[in-house]
Amino acid sequence: MDDKILRTTRELIDEVGYPALTVDQVAARAGVGKAAIYRRYTSKAEMAFAATMFEQQLPPLAGTGSLHGDLLELVRAFHVRMATPAARQLAPVLISEIAVNPGLDTRFQETFLAAEQALFADIIEQAVARGELAGTVDPAMAHLLLLGALASALYIINLPVDDAMVTDLVTAATAGITALADRHHSAADGAAEPHAE
Amino acid sequence: MDDKILRTTRELIDEVGYPALTVDQVAARAGVGKAAIYRRYTSKAEMAFAATMFEQQLPPLAGTGSLHGDLLELVRAFHVRMATPAARQLAPVLISEIAVNPGLDTRFQETFLAAEQALFADIIEQAVARGELAGTVDPAMAHLLLLGALASALYIINLPVDDAMVTDLVTAATAGITALADRHHSAADGAAEPHAE
Repeated sequence: MDDKILRTTRELIDEVGYPALTVDQVAARAGVGKAAIYRRYTSKAEMAFAATMFEQQLPPLAGTGSLHGDLLELVRAFHVRMATPAARQLAPVLISEIAVNPGLDTRFQETFLAAEQALFADIIEQAVARGELAGTVDPAMAHLLLLGALASALYIINLPVDDAMVTDLVTAATAGITALADRHHSAADGAAEPHAE
Repeated sequence: MDDKILRTTRELIDEVGYPALTVDQVAARAGVGKAAIYRRYTSKAEMAFAATMFEQQLPPLAGTGSLHGDLLELVRAFHVRMATPAARQLAPVLISEIAVNPGLDTRFQETFLAAEQALFADIIEQAVARGELAGTVDPAMAHLLLLGALASALYIINLPVDDAMVTDLVTAATAGITALADRHHSAADGAAEPHAE
């Protein structure tokens, strides 16, 4: 039933757009009760978010053998998903709902956000194993520098974001992650912290 | 009159909180007509945003003589302002209003965002003049890496943000800005781009 609800939601967003979408339409076309939908999703925005972003699997990532390459591959895949017209319409609504709905915030953190951060943790771990990073870096920080900055650009500042900008963001974040690894791991060795005040 | 409206808005947010604030209350206590308020601000969220964030001047920044130090000083000042309970309550509302109100979006971009980006442009220009950066870097990118990531942490992901995290963000962004300056300016000289795919 989950699948049917989400597929129908995607179809209706394509046909009528997110603003005109209603939970009633989804229930009617999917042949399920409205109550069944509201047991799964607290609002239209959450249902649409699940349908267009969270439940859509990322294409398998090949792995490129470098931190910069792996991050670029990952962020490009997210950019495609995050920049669709449906995502740009519903993300700001979801942001305002999460802010006033602690249950939704918890669900968002424990599922969507945790899954995203795990992808960064994997990439960082591989870079450490290759010797490209001096040690591990908090994946939440890598996530923030890349998808956090990208979400701000797309959903708060409403900038146009092209591939050159994604590439610059990844170049900057790669250098930033490398600097944090140097800083935290040389500090642990008792060496001077290069960026300490 | 602007000043009176904004001062009254700040007082009432402190007394009743943002959710309970109304434009009627502000009009009554400030002794101005509601129409006068709506000529200046399209909504309660925009009025509260102006009162608590935009119109509040940053403390004068001393300048520290280094890119990392200047960015840390600036981002710490913004963090204080952006992390207040009032700001955390109203930013998500404002985000959802900007997304559906092109006039408000334009105003936000031309005033608030332009002023923020100008602060980064100054800091970058000084770093180039000191020879700390190989050349200039788009201030919008520096803004995104720092205040964009910070806004995501505070308003989208709802992370707790402490000074250690602000410091790490600035360390990472400083390295990132330096890498972009190297990349774009060594590319201009015809040298190999260190991070090209």
